[in-house]
Amino acid sequence: MAPVHTAKKTENDQATSNLVHVDNPHLEKMKEDILYHFDIGTGTHDFPAMFGDVKFVCVGGSPSRMKAFAQYINGELALGDPNSDVANICAGTDRYAMYKVGPVLSISHGMGIPSISIMLHELIKLLYHSKCTNVTIIRIGTCGGIGLEPGSVVITSQSVDASFRPQFEQIILGKTVVRNTELDSELAREFFQCSKEINEFNTVIGNTMCTLDFYEGQARLDGAFCSYTEEEKMQYLKAAYDAGVRNIEMESSVFAAMCNISGLKAAVVCVTLLNRLEGDQISSSHEVLADYQQRPQKLVGFFIKKHLNKA
Amino acid sequence: MAPVHTAKKTENDQATSNLVHVDNPHLEKMKEDILYHFDIGTGTHDFPAMFGDVKFVCVGGSPSRMKAFAQYINGELALGDPNSDVANICAGTDRYAMYKVGPVLSISHGMGIPSISIMLHELIKLLYHSKCTNVTIIRIGTCGGIGLEPGSVVITSQSVDASFRPQFEQIILGKTVVRNTELDSELAREFFQCSKEINEFNTVIGNTMCTLDFYEGQARLDGAFCSYTEEEKMQYLKAAYDAGVRNIEMESSVFAAMCNISGLKAAVVCVTLLNRLEGDQISSSHEVLADYQQRPQKLVGFFIKKHLNKA
Repeated sequence: MAPVHTAKKTENDQATSNLVHVDNPHLEKMKEDILYHFDIGTGTHDFPAMFGDVKFVCVGGSPSRMKAFAQYINGELALGDPNSDVANICAGTDRYAMYKVGPVLSISHGMGIPSISIMLHELIKLLYHSKCTNVTIIRIGTCGGIGLEPGSVVITSQSVDASFRPQFEQIILGKTVVRNTELDSELAREFFQCSKEINEFNTVIGNTMCTLDFYEGQARLDGAFCSYTEEEKMQYLKAAYDAGVRNIEMESSVFAAMCNISGLKAAVVCVTLLNRLEGDQISSSHEVLADYQQRPQKLVGFFIKKHLNKA
Repeated sequence: MAPVHTAKKTENDQATSNLVHVDNPHLEKMKEDILYHFDIGTGTHDFPAMFGDVKFVCVGGSPSRMKAFAQYINGELALGDPNSDVANICAGTDRYAMYKVGPVLSISHGMGIPSISIMLHELIKLLYHSKCTNVTIIRIGTCGGIGLEPGSVVITSQSVDASFRPQFEQIILGKTVVRNTELDSELAREFFQCSKEINEFNTVIGNTMCTLDFYEGQARLDGAFCSYTEEEKMQYLKAAYDAGVRNIEMESSVFAAMCNISGLKAAVVCVTLLNRLEGDQISSSHEVLADYQQRPQKLVGFFIKKHLNKA
């Protein structure tokens, strides 16, 4: 039997379908939900009042960068002085830092898949408990580029693993479950269009390789251990390039997979700190690196402003 | 032909053999080594002068906990006031925090295998460049226990994966390399003996399961996603218990594997914040959790004092 579709969704249906969803029947049975790594909980905090108006969530590795981003957005949206302090909602813990500026939530996630995965589980539950609708989430990060001049911004089309496959392997009860790591192509194109309008730095759309290790896992020659030659390294990176990989980082695969399951519109926007075909060490000056790191922030700030002006 | 052994090692040989070793021929060719995530480098810092006397390295997830540990050691070794501030050697970055108190280095590593692996690559190179000898490294952390009363301390005999195998899979140039995750059994027994002498909390030696995820990866029912029943969860945790697993955390496997390769004497000492056979949420009060978290610190402080008094 074919499923029945109504011709037009009512506004209420639309809002319901655009809710952030969890995929866990056990949550309904819990009286209280403690988000341990955020140091907040539904028994002690009024989630809908605190977070119900959130429309954009921006996440990145470093807590100080995510604080700076919140301050930048404060200025851009004319909500406050970009030099004034913003309060850390997760002040009771140092696992993550979280800032809220109008409809924008800015959260740090540390480094690597496990660290961002803990944060995303608790964030998705936070958005769910808060009854948020139509949320867009963007990872703004740093990465190594392949064949791009340092300082280029890469918008991820799909996140691939170390064998260049667009998938994330999650181990559940000791068994491997494979999840899809594609990202919203329309959103990626929209970010690309914003970058053209800003017209200040090189931007490309490409595949992003997500690894579990920064040194051996990314074919670097400068870790504590290295069992391969420079030639083997270059072969691997060139094979990655031929598979459409333009940058390498450590969080995008689980980010894409978890956002897909929870129905969050998601993008990954990272700036390359070096060209891995030319070296492994990040040796640019602090000033140059600080300038590079502002590029994803600028791009995402521009995108958010555009959307809020449209709304 | 049988290898030739000299009857007795000279003091110089002994010192050489107890150096921390890197396993990377490329390092010798580098003029300068920038430890990017520590924000220090051999071109700008005198490593042997700064770190040459380090004998104990203590690592843990949270930067504030590792600062508190450095201050505690300051008092215990009568090197300074435990209430006075200690300087963060990695103040130029917020990726990790590092403190030095006499021969003790205290470093944070964030959460998860990738995060601790970046730190360990740079730490092993730091100890190598500093020509450190006879270094013992201890991870002091928090974890979930299996079948133990909350607040128990687990000293890891071996770290096992989600299928209870004592191994760590590292992906290099897209291929899987399997590494050994056993820890020094003599050192584990020594910690157990110290705990008996302190006689303040329950301590066991057992296997530690190391996972890539806190929720689905540890069979929790309270993540954003959960596709299994409570019964299946309990079956899995009981199978882990039967395989000798007494606690679950997220860093020990790569820690054991990397310390094995570099010849570092290593131990993992974690306190259980809850008994996973009785629940998933960490709901104890801040005061109780803070008390639990001091137990590994106390144990390691006792161990270090004992060793320094012997020397």
